[in-house]
Amino acid sequence: MSQTFTPLSTLGEFGLIQRMSERLAGVARSSRLIEGIGDDAAVYQASEGLLHVITTDALIEGVHFDRTFIPMSFLGYKAISVNVSDVVAMNARPLYATIALGVPRNMSVEMVDSLYDGLQIGCKKYGMELVGGDTSTSHALYISITVVGEVAEQDVVFRRGANVGDFLCVTGDVGGAYAGLKVLLDQRQALKDMGDQYEPDLDAHQYVIQRQLRPHARLDMIEAFKKAGIKPTSMIDISDGIASEVHHIATKSGVGATVRIPALPFDPETRAVADQFMDDIDAYALFGGEDYELLFTVDPSQVALVDALEGCSVIGNIEEATKGIRAYSPDTGLMPLHPSGYQHFNPDSENLDVLGPDHFQDSRS
Amino acid sequence: MSQTFTPLSTLGEFGLIQRMSERLAGVARSSRLIEGIGDDAAVYQASEGLLHVITTDALIEGVHFDRTFIPMSFLGYKAISVNVSDVVAMNARPLYATIALGVPRNMSVEMVDSLYDGLQIGCKKYGMELVGGDTSTSHALYISITVVGEVAEQDVVFRRGANVGDFLCVTGDVGGAYAGLKVLLDQRQALKDMGDQYEPDLDAHQYVIQRQLRPHARLDMIEAFKKAGIKPTSMIDISDGIASEVHHIATKSGVGATVRIPALPFDPETRAVADQFMDDIDAYALFGGEDYELLFTVDPSQVALVDALEGCSVIGNIEEATKGIRAYSPDTGLMPLHPSGYQHFNPDSENLDVLGPDHFQDSRS
Repeated sequence: MSQTFTPLSTLGEFGLIQRMSERLAGVARSSRLIEGIGDDAAVYQASEGLLHVITTDALIEGVHFDRTFIPMSFLGYKAISVNVSDVVAMNARPLYATIALGVPRNMSVEMVDSLYDGLQIGCKKYGMELVGGDTSTSHALYISITVVGEVAEQDVVFRRGANVGDFLCVTGDVGGAYAGLKVLLDQRQALKDMGDQYEPDLDAHQYVIQRQLRPHARLDMIEAFKKAGIKPTSMIDISDGIASEVHHIATKSGVGATVRIPALPFDPETRAVADQFMDDIDAYALFGGEDYELLFTVDPSQVALVDALEGCSVIGNIEEATKGIRAYSPDTGLMPLHPSGYQHFNPDSENLDVLGPDHFQDSRS
Repeated sequence: MSQTFTPLSTLGEFGLIQRMSERLAGVARSSRLIEGIGDDAAVYQASEGLLHVITTDALIEGVHFDRTFIPMSFLGYKAISVNVSDVVAMNARPLYATIALGVPRNMSVEMVDSLYDGLQIGCKKYGMELVGGDTSTSHALYISITVVGEVAEQDVVFRRGANVGDFLCVTGDVGGAYAGLKVLLDQRQALKDMGDQYEPDLDAHQYVIQRQLRPHARLDMIEAFKKAGIKPTSMIDISDGIASEVHHIATKSGVGATVRIPALPFDPETRAVADQFMDDIDAYALFGGEDYELLFTVDPSQVALVDALEGCSVIGNIEEATKGIRAYSPDTGLMPLHPSGYQHFNPDSENLDVLGPDHFQDSRS
């Protein structure tokens, strides 16, 4: 077989997904498919007035997690959360999950049980049923989950609905998952350096470690939205950091946006970690990712409802597309906000390669 | 961490799936879920009179396939077919697919394109739309696909519906995929032995090689059933061989069954391969697997319709549970039929470990 080889790294993850969309563009679209590849989840008509959404996400050992680092039950829970988070980002609630597991032969039955426990706790937490599974041996632990959810037709929210004049908002607090990652990497290094002498000190960092290892999908917040009468105009979950997510919303909606840096909500523990490592805490939120909070926009008529809702912050504005995507702080004024980081934000790429998401991104490959 | 380690091999694949069901049994079942884990696909109510089905299946390099063995486009097509086959086995038609890919860094863009091509050809073939994708690097090539399908409520067919007196039937011909595997393994050995001197002779084996590398899901047959007015009482697709599948139907339906060996339909090319290797051709069909034909049962009132349908064979009878699962041939009379093989059927386990499915089965671990 003669074959010209182009290295995969020339494409990157987004390139691969783009290429998949293009290659498969010839496949006829049915009138029942409302949204295909390109949002947090695909959306299709299930019945009159009711939509179903579907999303798939895989966690792969050595790429998305380090098995020596995360308890198996946390990993099971996290795998459920990251998928439910994509469903929630459509303003939908999860119904059913299927799981394909690749299990290396050096895992014990007890570890698999612990993984199952985490999956079960996740399913219970989100009121979802596991309806199908496929299990095989594999070289590394591989967890691929698909979730189907539902949403009333009038309630569905896409990335593409933001309008000029809307307010940009976020649920919960941000940057915590990246702070947790910093702590865990630091402890691992200390363990390497000191061996058995080392006694891990994790008590002071419980919250941020949980944010990293056992994130929650904000199903509770979309229920709170419904109760409060809030319908976002656009929404996305924060898997890659606010900078990247606001770019997705702006690009899909054909608008610009400004993120007001002083408005970013941080937990005190996240601040303490950033101080300890002398890091720029804003970078944790903008580029760290894995917070699985919801970034959303609302019409100005609804901003008072958001203000009244506990656990929501208004962090910016939607503007004309010509203004681009910017960050504002009193120190720097208005600056362009790139999706993949400030120039001075240069995390240890080897570490991110082991634990971070989106290893394919040019900045990290 | 103190942990007692029980080797995974003590459980096996069925044990792992069983354990998953048990561990997750505490999760509340909704009234809309009609069938969870335990059939070819899960079934849930989509709207009044309409059911959706969902299934997940993963193909893992080194476990389910050898990358040097199967063209990437065939692999993409096969990955689609094996999932559609599970949907078809519920008498449903496929609507949407999501794909999670783990791509090793040593794959080229051209190989990924070829894989996408195969996925696209598969989606087109079955009239299905790819609506979601997730792509990551991984250690080996990992393809996990989920398919959602639909079926009218009165048309759905489960494994559990076979009744005493029903006829056992199969679509197409069987044993071909295993014959193709034998040919491919033989050619690989010759290549190893002879190196560059070797000129592969595959022309005589086109059909069986296609059966192994590029199987079709029998969506055409369930359309033919509908046209002919046939509604099977139970159905399953043949991924593990007729012996294993008839056990699934019998166990779920609480019945016994007899497979009439002389009635098994073989392609002449499959016969030629079995002759060439001096193998028992019946074993190819009963234990070889991967044919992705449909094994189904019909009420006696419908057997004339099946006889009239091209590409269907009646191969046995459903009996009382007390009679067990048996095979009949004029030579041996009635003999118990075990799911995992005759004692004299002892394929090269190393080869099956590389290419065969269900590597976790005790007989092959």
